Amino acid sequence: MARQPSRGLADVVAAATALSDIDGTIGRLSYRGYDINQLAEAATFEEIAYLLQRGSPPTAAELGAYGGEIMAGRELGALVADDLVRIAHHQEPMEALRTLVSLASASDPDKDSNAPQANLRKAARLTAQQPVLVAAYEAARNGRDLPAGDPRLSLAGNFLLQVTGNRPRQRCAEILDICLVLHADHTMNASTFAARVCAATLSDMHSAVVAALGTLKGPLHGGANEQVMRTLEDIAKNAQADPVEAAGTEVAARLRRGEKIMGFGHRVYKVEDPRATILRRLAAELAETAGDDTYYQMSRKIEATVLAEKGIYPNVDFFAATVYHYLGIPTDLFTPVFSVSRMAGWTAHVIEQHADNRLIRPDSEYIGEAGLTWVPLAAR
Amino acid sequence: MARQPSRGLADVVAAATALSDIDGTIGRLSYRGYDINQLAEAATFEEIAYLLQRGSPPTAAELGAYGGEIMAGRELGALVADDLVRIAHHQEPMEALRTLVSLASASDPDKDSNAPQANLRKAARLTAQQPVLVAAYEAARNGRDLPAGDPRLSLAGNFLLQVTGNRPRQRCAEILDICLVLHADHTMNASTFAARVCAATLSDMHSAVVAALGTLKGPLHGGANEQVMRTLEDIAKNAQADPVEAAGTEVAARLRRGEKIMGFGHRVYKVEDPRATILRRLAAELAETAGDDTYYQMSRKIEATVLAEKGIYPNVDFFAATVYHYLGIPTDLFTPVFSVSRMAGWTAHVIEQHADNRLIRPDSEYIGEAGLTWVPLAAR
Repeated sequence: MARQPSRGLADVVAAATALSDIDGTIGRLSYRGYDINQLAEAATFEEIAYLLQRGSPPTAAELGAYGGEIMAGRELGALVADDLVRIAHHQEPMEALRTLVSLASASDPDKDSNAPQANLRKAARLTAQQPVLVAAYEAARNGRDLPAGDPRLSLAGNFLLQVTGNRPRQRCAEILDICLVLHADHTMNASTFAARVCAATLSDMHSAVVAALGTLKGPLHGGANEQVMRTLEDIAKNAQADPVEAAGTEVAARLRRGEKIMGFGHRVYKVEDPRATILRRLAAELAETAGDDTYYQMSRKIEATVLAEKGIYPNVDFFAATVYHYLGIPTDLFTPVFSVSRMAGWTAHVIEQHADNRLIRPDSEYIGEAGLTWVPLAAR
Repeated sequence: MARQPSRGLADVVAAATALSDIDGTIGRLSYRGYDINQLAEAATFEEIAYLLQRGSPPTAAELGAYGGEIMAGRELGALVADDLVRIAHHQEPMEALRTLVSLASASDPDKDSNAPQANLRKAARLTAQQPVLVAAYEAARNGRDLPAGDPRLSLAGNFLLQVTGNRPRQRCAEILDICLVLHADHTMNASTFAARVCAATLSDMHSAVVAALGTLKGPLHGGANEQVMRTLEDIAKNAQADPVEAAGTEVAARLRRGEKIMGFGHRVYKVEDPRATILRRLAAELAETAGDDTYYQMSRKIEATVLAEKGIYPNVDFFAATVYHYLGIPTDLFTPVFSVSRMAGWTAHVIEQHADNRLIRPDSEYIGEAGLTWVPLAAR
């Protein structure tokens, strides 16, 4: 007897995980038992990727070896390198990343193996490769060569260097690193769940990650951070006078028309998403450094308006948009930046799924007609 | 409060659908209310694709117009055509199809739209494109040009023509057409579910189908038909005397060692899968025509052995393997043939998901440690 339908599987437990945990009533997110508030400034993204993929915080020696794998994984395979320019000119960023990661499996030395050690190596390679793919895409579509990386920089620092073409200030690299830490995993979000459904057929890690990338692309998931920025840009462009006042007026009008404001609310959090709290602080810091806090003040105004009218809090996407903007990342690469971080979580979930696998095959409720008789074409 | 975990979501209703229905207790599968046993010989795959995607059996005029869309959709986009040879030489069939369909979105005139009419057109194009992609891959890896299609042949007939290079006997085209009808949809199987999880973020149809392809690739799902054929081939090659006797002995030995025999059992059917019943009959017919019934008799022997020892019935993959073999399809293209058919269902499920969408975002059960304190690297 199938259980009653649950639209969107809300409140249905689909899998057990030791990777991350959310307490939505108090707004707590933790990775392998460590509260995100401890990790944000104290841990690097490389440490978090290691923690998620390999189970515990690395020692200095382990982190050194993992860093070596990350360095080696920055080299793009021949198939990807050869196709990059053409794909960059014909596909949008997330569409291109879906294709490029699918192509990249051809060059992975462990491509045909789901063995635990092979999956650990593939996870490191995919984590290393993703920021380089995003930056290489950005360079290729602009007719530039990919700037050389700098082995002294972190993954976040190298990404900023390669995607903007300018060596980042140290604090900017640190802030992006915090963003990557904050986005690395988030229990059974839609893209992670798609990756696990794929991996549970004992398909390979690249297939699972490609499924996740296509899923993250959707505006109800990773695509939301880009939508937030487009809203800010549109309001600023069309504002007759003060864009901050315009932000409040425009969002209030949209709410009255019943429109959805991107970057607000989350199925799991009943209070503010802890990642939003940290990202708001980083947005304020960057706005002050930039000497132009328009987008930050507009964001605060929108936040206050939505909270007053609907009682809904901003989610991770809302202030991430402003942060990425101040870091000089092009708006249509915001969702790709999300993927740079979430790659750590997706790959860790594939490892976890394969370690204790069962096919994920739910039931459906049939709501169509029954017992019909097929009439041959000539008699229709 | 989350519901108790259900491993693999067995018996959890994940979505409502009017596309297909299974009654596992009596072994009945129906598409939009029509029993598969009626459809197998009476309906063509094109009619079934139309039925699933557009809601009702086509009139002659509607089928004519849909056939025109299928014809037009057989043209591969420039990006795909340019990359085919390189991809065919560096990626395995399902890996390559995942990449090629991801590339193909670049050439789709409706690529950026999730509008209902756009999705209907994309569904027809993806259904038309898939058999051509498989045949073009086969030609490219063998250094041949893709044989020209014949507009007088059905989708199944054109596929056999283009994949083998020989004009198929009419009955062979009919038998493949029946196979495509039988595989077109099957409620919330893993690849279809992956497609719906992806589409539910309001991502696009190509992303959903790419997720499905990577999921179908797994040996616990679409990959099973290929595994069945490899088992038959291995046993035949290593048989000291009669391969039919060897099949019984070898499978009995594997069962005693606790090994899984591919092509048997299904989470949903408690009696024989109705598709297996039809495919067994087609395998017998093709074996007789071929004048060599070794693989068919081996299959019957394995079937009897597994039923006697474990009480488990063959599933859709078991006799599909023998049928595809007799039709002259290379073994490593069996899962791609599955994708040629299931494309009709995947695309129909995306249309259905988008028509009444809600994000699919389940809960997880956290089974890791809690309340840990992060120790800085230097102190680890």
